[in-house]
Amino acid sequence: MYHDIVIGRREEMGSHTFTADEIIAFATKYDPQPFHLSEEAGRRSHFGALVASGWHTGGYWMRMRVEHSRRIAAERAAKGLPPQWNGPSAGFKNLKWPKPVLAGDTVTYFTEVTGKRPLASRPDTGIIYSLNTGVNQNGDLVFSFEGTVFVPM
Amino acid sequence: MYHDIVIGRREEMGSHTFTADEIIAFATKYDPQPFHLSEEAGRRSHFGALVASGWHTGGYWMRMRVEHSRRIAAERAAKGLPPQWNGPSAGFKNLKWPKPVLAGDTVTYFTEVTGKRPLASRPDTGIIYSLNTGVNQNGDLVFSFEGTVFVPM
Repeated sequence: MYHDIVIGRREEMGSHTFTADEIIAFATKYDPQPFHLSEEAGRRSHFGALVASGWHTGGYWMRMRVEHSRRIAAERAAKGLPPQWNGPSAGFKNLKWPKPVLAGDTVTYFTEVTGKRPLASRPDTGIIYSLNTGVNQNGDLVFSFEGTVFVPM
Repeated sequence: MYHDIVIGRREEMGSHTFTADEIIAFATKYDPQPFHLSEEAGRRSHFGALVASGWHTGGYWMRMRVEHSRRIAAERAAKGLPPQWNGPSAGFKNLKWPKPVLAGDTVTYFTEVTGKRPLASRPDTGIIYSLNTGVNQNGDLVFSFEGTVFVPM
């Protein structure tokens, strides 16, 4: 619900280590560029290493988001609370991959509430803004976007 | 090269039919929400059907982009021309999934050049703006984002 959402709240959703095998498996199906397909081609590329497709990094953000929501729902259920409503996404802004994700890198995903406002056109609905990020084991930002979801008032 | 890029040029990159099996396989790994995981849960959801993860629709955009670039490179090679330089992405804006992609839907992906300008900070580089879309067999927009890439002047 809208009134439960605290601006500034930042949650760690989970971490994932991107292995060479899964980077190659994802890229074979969805992003068959040489630097995503073999260690050798990665070394010869401007990345200097096998790197994960940006869509792969994004796919894991989604998985972490789903698992995180499930953990919260289970915690709420244990307290006798109803599940938190996860509204439909109104789209993403400024999706960026500031640094590559190399084979063996561990990415930790975060979501932070950056703002909220009632929706003028629908008095029963509010809009929540968030900054969603992925950070590697060295503390480098490797993934980010600004999200918007609708929630009931 | 910057001077070869024609504003307003729209290219059809290719089409893909999203089968139930592959929607479920992708979602099992990257987006395990019920309406992506079984026909029955899809029917019970607000979508009323099994629908593809938005990251799956995006992943196929990337694959179509790679295959399209390869076809262009082969055509240029056949004419004795060097490959076109595909610059690094500067990020995506306004990524949207305006309608769901249902099992059995065929999505056709397009890319259109919407603008270009020289980069003030680097005289050897220009920036190209594009609108990238996916349209289903009924002509409905199901995927879109605004892209930005760097190209040599």
